[in-house]
Amino acid sequence: MKIIEGGVTAAEGFQAAAVAAGVKKANRKDMALVYSTVPCQAAGTFTTNVVKAAPVKWDQQIVYSQEKVQAIVCNSGVANACTGQEGMENCQKTAQAAAKALNIGENQVLVASTGVIGQQLPIEKICAGVEQMAPLLSEKKEAGTMAAQAIMTTDTVSKETAVQIQLGGKTVTLGGMCKGSGMIHPNMCTMLSFITTDAAISKEMLQKAMSSTVADTYNMISVDGDTSTNDTALVLASGLAGNPEITQENEDYHTFLEALRQVNETLAKKMAADGEGATALFEVKILGAKDKAQAVTLAKSVITSSLTKAAIFGHDANWGRILCAMGYSGAQFDPEQVDLFFESAAGKLQIIENGVAVDYSEEEATRILSEKEVTAIADIKQGEASATAWGCDLTYDYVKINADYRS
Amino acid sequence: MKIIEGGVTAAEGFQAAAVAAGVKKANRKDMALVYSTVPCQAAGTFTTNVVKAAPVKWDQQIVYSQEKVQAIVCNSGVANACTGQEGMENCQKTAQAAAKALNIGENQVLVASTGVIGQQLPIEKICAGVEQMAPLLSEKKEAGTMAAQAIMTTDTVSKETAVQIQLGGKTVTLGGMCKGSGMIHPNMCTMLSFITTDAAISKEMLQKAMSSTVADTYNMISVDGDTSTNDTALVLASGLAGNPEITQENEDYHTFLEALRQVNETLAKKMAADGEGATALFEVKILGAKDKAQAVTLAKSVITSSLTKAAIFGHDANWGRILCAMGYSGAQFDPEQVDLFFESAAGKLQIIENGVAVDYSEEEATRILSEKEVTAIADIKQGEASATAWGCDLTYDYVKINADYRS
Repeated sequence: MKIIEGGVTAAEGFQAAAVAAGVKKANRKDMALVYSTVPCQAAGTFTTNVVKAAPVKWDQQIVYSQEKVQAIVCNSGVANACTGQEGMENCQKTAQAAAKALNIGENQVLVASTGVIGQQLPIEKICAGVEQMAPLLSEKKEAGTMAAQAIMTTDTVSKETAVQIQLGGKTVTLGGMCKGSGMIHPNMCTMLSFITTDAAISKEMLQKAMSSTVADTYNMISVDGDTSTNDTALVLASGLAGNPEITQENEDYHTFLEALRQVNETLAKKMAADGEGATALFEVKILGAKDKAQAVTLAKSVITSSLTKAAIFGHDANWGRILCAMGYSGAQFDPEQVDLFFESAAGKLQIIENGVAVDYSEEEATRILSEKEVTAIADIKQGEASATAWGCDLTYDYVKINADYRS
Repeated sequence: MKIIEGGVTAAEGFQAAAVAAGVKKANRKDMALVYSTVPCQAAGTFTTNVVKAAPVKWDQQIVYSQEKVQAIVCNSGVANACTGQEGMENCQKTAQAAAKALNIGENQVLVASTGVIGQQLPIEKICAGVEQMAPLLSEKKEAGTMAAQAIMTTDTVSKETAVQIQLGGKTVTLGGMCKGSGMIHPNMCTMLSFITTDAAISKEMLQKAMSSTVADTYNMISVDGDTSTNDTALVLASGLAGNPEITQENEDYHTFLEALRQVNETLAKKMAADGEGATALFEVKILGAKDKAQAVTLAKSVITSSLTKAAIFGHDANWGRILCAMGYSGAQFDPEQVDLFFESAAGKLQIIENGVAVDYSEEEATRILSEKEVTAIADIKQGEASATAWGCDLTYDYVKINADYRS
């Protein structure tokens, strides 16, 4: 696998465009269009929130059917969530505008929105934006980057990645972009992720690969524990790489799966690191678990602990909070078997051995925890399973971003 | 039921004392002793965290046995959690010191600690403190207040309450004190609650009453979602009121239960309102649930949502976050049936009707949300069950208290 430059336009046949359609104020890019020159197999995963935004419902209808997909329209600024029947009609109007501009069917168009909850889309602006973007579509790297910028809300950096693999003697490319975690009118941490690939793969295997990698990547990050109404991860596969179509779990499938996992993990970590107000990416590894489920439960409990996140912000080796968060996770383990380490670019340091603090240097611990990416590693010595979760620190700016936006 | 002044010394036969034993720095009171002149039935509930502090294990041994109890020794400053065998031995040494000073058995002494995790108790200071407190024991109201002050950590106010009821022609008093939520060396939100009563009640019925009221009171508050290693709620019943002993679920039991619920709810709300960094008590009522479990799940999901808590800090009627937190709670409901209201001393305002925003005034909503106690009421129109949870807003000071303590 080779990591390359680029994003949603890296794979063969994918084009993108972006415009400032006036959904956000101040002439900022707020709409993106991703287009494939040929119909694609589509797969996706969506928020488990009972309160689902209209575009989530629209996309589910299409992704769960046998329709092939050729376009994704995404806007930032307004989430189109809690908008009732009018919200659903606006999804259809958006898809119709794209269908007309691109000469495809409205059921070949996926839609996605991110922004404030409870407001209706400014649908005339959205449809005008779609018309404006169609002639701007380009396969250039810069077009992908502009699309990644257009879907940002309180994100401080745009987020793209791409990789190449060899399948059946053909070069297959996967690229993607995502946004998270916040909004111009912050209302909730929304994650959107769009992956494109020129791999030839059946719809069934594409969904299988996407679902299995999402569990280890996007579902293992947390900024604030609040699951959005709009979370959406989509993958489009055009087949233009010309590799033998993947229709079963063969070697090619596993090569593709690993590449997709790499793309999704990279994007997921970029979101966690750019969490609202974050100053550090916080990684938690659980080792020695008796099974994967136990490892996941423990890792997620630590990554979502407000007290632990505040300690990371303070560069404070407050290991009691980590052990405590593991303790209330619901997973069973013996606290008096736990070893705990902190690790970063500045080194690795053991803090606890068998549940009791070793004689470590607080200064060295603080030095390690002062890096931009820090890891806590807990070995519970029950078995061979492991899990990794990613989050960020809890900072004044998180409170500021989420308390002050109307003032 | 009559609400009266006082705390742990309000009921017949209960005495208290407090000293500065040197566990905390700067000559601050850090130890409390509660003593009953006669042996008491004892009941309690304890943290469900897998990582349990030594005093929790000590108290469970006694409360779950048939031992009667005459004293509680509590220190602040050090939590005696993650302290291994030495931590357990220090519980016993503390109990032995109290047994000697009070001329009772060591198994008649409960112990409790709150403070930093992972440090051993300064056991000589603790034992000296116990000896110092024994001759200071007093049944005066002031003695109870001093005890309530001695168990404070990052608490900004001490927390006491007391009520009186009539049982079988006798006046029965219940009083209590608690602490939460934070520490001088903040390490985790620890809650300790101590209730005393002169009611005559069997151990079995006392435990039943305590467990059932804890579910609706302490278990319905959250400051930061982090369940402590030290959480302990204890009740001692001396029988000195002379009422007919409560041994079954008769009318007296229900009168007692309601009084105990009142005491526990009052203390629980005091803790939520004094949550670390809090500027407001945030109450969430779920109405129209199909059963209690569903109502509890929904109420707790809202009360622990960081985004909702930050919005309360900002006096922002950000109802989308509340609906979102209900949506990811795991409880099933129809978002398009939900009515939502905000209420406080400044008034009551409907925000959503059947899942969609009504045309409310943002200014009036902000005025309502600017009070010290604010309530969100969600009616999901599925049935008759309801639940109430209490929390607080998420503020800069929460981050400051929990990030900066070593700097």
